[in-house]
Amino acid sequence: MAPPVTVNSINPSTELIAFLCAHINLRILSFRQVIECEYAVRGEIVILAQKLQEEIKANPAAHPFEEILYCNIGNPQSLGQQPITFFREVLALCDHPSLLDKSETQSLFSTDSIQRASKILDQIPGRATGAYSHSQGVKGLRDTIAAGIEARDSFPADPNDIFLTDGASPAVHMMIQLLIRSENDGILCPIPQYPLYSASIALHGGTLVPYYLDEATGWGLEVSDLKKQLETAKSKGIDVRALVVINPGNPTGQVLAEENRKEIAKFCKEEGLVLLADEVYQENVYVPEKKFHSFKKVSRSMGYGEKDIHLVSFQSVSKGYYGECGKRGGYMEITRFGADVREHIYKLASVNLCSNISGQILASLVMSPPKVGDESYESYSAKRDGILSSLARRAKTLEDAFNKLEGVTCNKAEGAMYLFPRINLPEKAIKAAGEARTAADAFYCRRLLTETGIVFVPGSGFGQVPGTWHFRCTILPQEYKIPAVVTRLTDFHKRFMDEFRD
Amino acid sequence: MAPPVTVNSINPSTELIAFLCAHINLRILSFRQVIECEYAVRGEIVILAQKLQEEIKANPAAHPFEEILYCNIGNPQSLGQQPITFFREVLALCDHPSLLDKSETQSLFSTDSIQRASKILDQIPGRATGAYSHSQGVKGLRDTIAAGIEARDSFPADPNDIFLTDGASPAVHMMIQLLIRSENDGILCPIPQYPLYSASIALHGGTLVPYYLDEATGWGLEVSDLKKQLETAKSKGIDVRALVVINPGNPTGQVLAEENRKEIAKFCKEEGLVLLADEVYQENVYVPEKKFHSFKKVSRSMGYGEKDIHLVSFQSVSKGYYGECGKRGGYMEITRFGADVREHIYKLASVNLCSNISGQILASLVMSPPKVGDESYESYSAKRDGILSSLARRAKTLEDAFNKLEGVTCNKAEGAMYLFPRINLPEKAIKAAGEARTAADAFYCRRLLTETGIVFVPGSGFGQVPGTWHFRCTILPQEYKIPAVVTRLTDFHKRFMDEFRD
Repeated sequence: MAPPVTVNSINPSTELIAFLCAHINLRILSFRQVIECEYAVRGEIVILAQKLQEEIKANPAAHPFEEILYCNIGNPQSLGQQPITFFREVLALCDHPSLLDKSETQSLFSTDSIQRASKILDQIPGRATGAYSHSQGVKGLRDTIAAGIEARDSFPADPNDIFLTDGASPAVHMMIQLLIRSENDGILCPIPQYPLYSASIALHGGTLVPYYLDEATGWGLEVSDLKKQLETAKSKGIDVRALVVINPGNPTGQVLAEENRKEIAKFCKEEGLVLLADEVYQENVYVPEKKFHSFKKVSRSMGYGEKDIHLVSFQSVSKGYYGECGKRGGYMEITRFGADVREHIYKLASVNLCSNISGQILASLVMSPPKVGDESYESYSAKRDGILSSLARRAKTLEDAFNKLEGVTCNKAEGAMYLFPRINLPEKAIKAAGEARTAADAFYCRRLLTETGIVFVPGSGFGQVPGTWHFRCTILPQEYKIPAVVTRLTDFHKRFMDEFRD
Repeated sequence: MAPPVTVNSINPSTELIAFLCAHINLRILSFRQVIECEYAVRGEIVILAQKLQEEIKANPAAHPFEEILYCNIGNPQSLGQQPITFFREVLALCDHPSLLDKSETQSLFSTDSIQRASKILDQIPGRATGAYSHSQGVKGLRDTIAAGIEARDSFPADPNDIFLTDGASPAVHMMIQLLIRSENDGILCPIPQYPLYSASIALHGGTLVPYYLDEATGWGLEVSDLKKQLETAKSKGIDVRALVVINPGNPTGQVLAEENRKEIAKFCKEEGLVLLADEVYQENVYVPEKKFHSFKKVSRSMGYGEKDIHLVSFQSVSKGYYGECGKRGGYMEITRFGADVREHIYKLASVNLCSNISGQILASLVMSPPKVGDESYESYSAKRDGILSSLARRAKTLEDAFNKLEGVTCNKAEGAMYLFPRINLPEKAIKAAGEARTAADAFYCRRLLTETGIVFVPGSGFGQVPGTWHFRCTILPQEYKIPAVVTRLTDFHKRFMDEFRD
């Protein structure tokens, strides 16, 4: 005889439940958007590309091109970028610590990688890289990251403010989840934007309050527009709680000017908004006239302390010069959140126990790479500079090539890993796309793929002014392949325009 | 002037949207349950334990015990279990592939680890362990896992049926998400159960249909009870879609008998239920009279083919003799799902791009460990057998100790990593717990912690017959510490009963 049972009858903190009830709202329709959005960079066109790749392998003669040129996703090592040796040495030693006791290791590994691995292992309780860690991540690794942030910003950082995550995305989801209580809660987001934000806001049942990057001024961010959008949202009863800034920009590739960063910090302080700063491309700046400065540094430089501004900074091991996407590492730094809110973030982090330890270690390494005098420093800095200067050249070459195409304009490639050129599609092409039941930019991208093997993502996946069309192109194909991308694209574009020109 | 914009206006497959609308349902209240449930194994009592640990460090003399004895979570390496050398050698070589070109590597690494790492790197496109992989996981690694499943079961396995995930939990969430369309969809789950299932069902807006493991017959699973619960659910208008079986059991530690496994497969076939088989403890069997057989092997042995039964098997690198929790690796094998459903699972997997590559590699290694004749085989098998036989002894010692305590009964420890003893708490203790506004089993566990340093999880976190009280105790403290656990527990229990005995 089966008796009645109580499931989940544990005795959680009533405070916790009240908080979560107030702060969490999940909605069915929104999940659809997650799928759609993320789908864009790994979606239909990419699946078609993979299919074509198989066909080429089976029958090379049947296709007009020999290989697929993937420009769809920020996945540098898939296109041949090599990892930083020092980082991989440390990971290998942490994976197999008994190497540290062997004499051969001295000749196989750099001295500083051996020292670093030993230090990291000492920081991990029981030197157990195979154990679940503290839900925020290993404390010693957070100490290192905090020190790295201090060195970058020249302002203090607290390891208790760091939450290590499997890449930046789970951190973004966590913060959006905490900020949104109902559909009346809004978050200001740039348009165009990386679709993670729109998806996450929708998933948690909130309202995206768009602000517009101005293509005409190099995807500039106008604080006057921010204010206007905020007022409009307020007038509709929306409680705007936070502002998302992606700097350097994705998909737009701009780097915010100093004055602009200050205006944004001031705006958030005055309006009491949480500033969600997506700073995952902090190492990816390609023009001498622009520098990356974190919003924490900017706000502290303005004299804003812990009490003045709620600030979250997201960082990832997948981008920068390291591009370690497969390792799934990242963190967020949260400042000016009280012990109560921090406790709730901790609870959310605990649901998944912890992020993977290799990703945690790598996050500590990218925030504390070799220093002058370390054995690895020269090879590390040469590789880093080589990758970044090559990316800068590729960005410039592609930018110039886009600007030479009929009806295409492309803003300056200042940072990140993308260009977001605008294409003025002929009416005839738009009509053909309509008949093919697809967006006009997707129509262009599909034709580009099947005729040249080049993979772009349609701009409609990121948001754009209606009636304008864009695509996102990464700058990641190896440098020697860029001329092929340019030639094929240029030839295709001419044929396409000849076919559809009004 | 900011124009109106379209966000997320890409053109997804309408089929996909229709499917997702039909199959996905997220609800607010349910998320609360996730937090509550997962909270149990990492919750209030664990936070108190960590606090006590800090206090002991600062002032050892002020506490009646020298260290905290963590028996709350299946995290073997945190308690000193060493990883399998071969696995870590391969991971290190894959993290730093240039080691393969060095002569010193021959003397530092086993021959078979070098061969395996070379093979794995050849299977990864571009040998890029730092790149995002295919959303299902690296194809070559799935080939290896499928071969491992074939070797285990003596029935064919298809790499296209494998989805690699960051541990087993994301795979469970994915399947529950696909199965639940509304609150009228039900899933049969054991009680007591690992709270992941109740949480995931609630999260996705479905109904948990409980079936009862019978404590009196060693946590046996009665198919007559399954049928009864199914009929009851049907009479309430619930469309029961799947059955969860955890074998070996968590938190209950039983291993299903052969006849019982067959009855379950037959029941699922006849009732058209998806069988969700949590088989993450497949290596953890401690009694000679019981063997693990996968439900795939069981059903194929009964003559059931692909067309007869929908089957999902979950596996993880966190359990077994390997216990690699920090690596976050796992997979699910799905059989008898059409191309359409498989495509939708692929879409869900794509949202997170891919699981971490080290976890993927490790999942391939645990399903294809060294074989007789390989250089590592002897040390590997000695370590494996040593760990498993030690776990068996620890389980037996703890089981015997529990059964000697006044008012406590404990079923045989057949498998997994847990015991789930029942404690007959005196009325006076239950009253004291009520006054302290806590569940009676949590009251006991808290007292146990503060007086002895031993950390158990209250049974109420897993579901139990109302009025009965249990706790979950892992068998993972190192073997030399088990006598201390037994002594401290026994002494505490006597004092507790002396204080509260009716």
